[in-house]
Amino acid sequence: MSFVHTLLLAPTPQSWIARAHGSLDVLLVDHANCEKKAASTALALMFAYAEDLELADHMSRLAREELRHYELVAQLLRKLEIEPKRLAPGRYAERLRRLVARGEPEREVDLMICGAFIEARSCERFAALSPVLGGAAGAMFESLHEAEARHFELYLGLTWRRASAPSPSSRRISS
Amino acid sequence: MSFVHTLLLAPTPQSWIARAHGSLDVLLVDHANCEKKAASTALALMFAYAEDLELADHMSRLAREELRHYELVAQLLRKLEIEPKRLAPGRYAERLRRLVARGEPEREVDLMICGAFIEARSCERFAALSPVLGGAAGAMFESLHEAEARHFELYLGLTWRRASAPSPSSRRISS
Repeated sequence: MSFVHTLLLAPTPQSWIARAHGSLDVLLVDHANCEKKAASTALALMFAYAEDLELADHMSRLAREELRHYELVAQLLRKLEIEPKRLAPGRYAERLRRLVARGEPEREVDLMICGAFIEARSCERFAALSPVLGGAAGAMFESLHEAEARHFELYLGLTWRRASAPSPSSRRISS
Repeated sequence: MSFVHTLLLAPTPQSWIARAHGSLDVLLVDHANCEKKAASTALALMFAYAEDLELADHMSRLAREELRHYELVAQLLRKLEIEPKRLAPGRYAERLRRLVARGEPEREVDLMICGAFIEARSCERFAALSPVLGGAAGAMFESLHEAEARHFELYLGLTWRRASAPSPSSRRISS
């Protein structure tokens, strides 16, 4: 957890935690979207770097795990009788991606760093949310927290892999 | 299997089977792409109909299964030392989707029918390919054949569901 904090520099403000606590329905619907987006990002990387079977294998397993998490959140939405409703999408990931290099292999390195940041922030946030929320939602975020830490480490490992040995097989495939 | 043939009207020509048999590398690389596309389609339906938790649950499980199949194909590519290479994408699914209605609930019904057609064709093709290919590839297509039949039935069930009882929760969410 400490390495996550080192990377993030700033902790999530207490005011965010309090607001999330007071809007459990929005928090959970948004989180269901986030799990789908995480799966979608992993799948997009499988298309973008289709020649890299090692990356694709990691991303395929990651996408499957994110989808299992989506199913967990959806189950909780049903249990708590929360209707999934339309939400304005957060701009956080989009703003991170604006900083991504256009040329390879820098682009792949940057995309992996974005993945690491997003997973690290989720990890830090879930650890802070879980004791405040309590109940079924608190337990769910507690269980997801460990997975986000693993995903953070996966993206970080893939960053080092590409940054230290740009492979000719990392040519981007537009498909 | 007979219902699959009824839906498809025409069987895959023997010339296609012979050509696929003679180009195992292209067949397998293309099939790896198809499994990724099938997962991607299921995920896109989860975003498009985010308010429909029943559909999303089916699509999430389907996407996870397609990704497991992708991993199987990728494993075989590695075993047979076939390099994943760039292929011109097939236009089959794209041409089917051109026929999809723009308004709801017809659009969702049409998308489910497209899914049923694509899975039915895979099912029929894998059954025809498997004995001709033999070996590890034949065994893999034999094992996938049963899954494609299940997916065909899933999409067909979802077609009836929406066609017989258009639900107000089926409003399309653009996300």
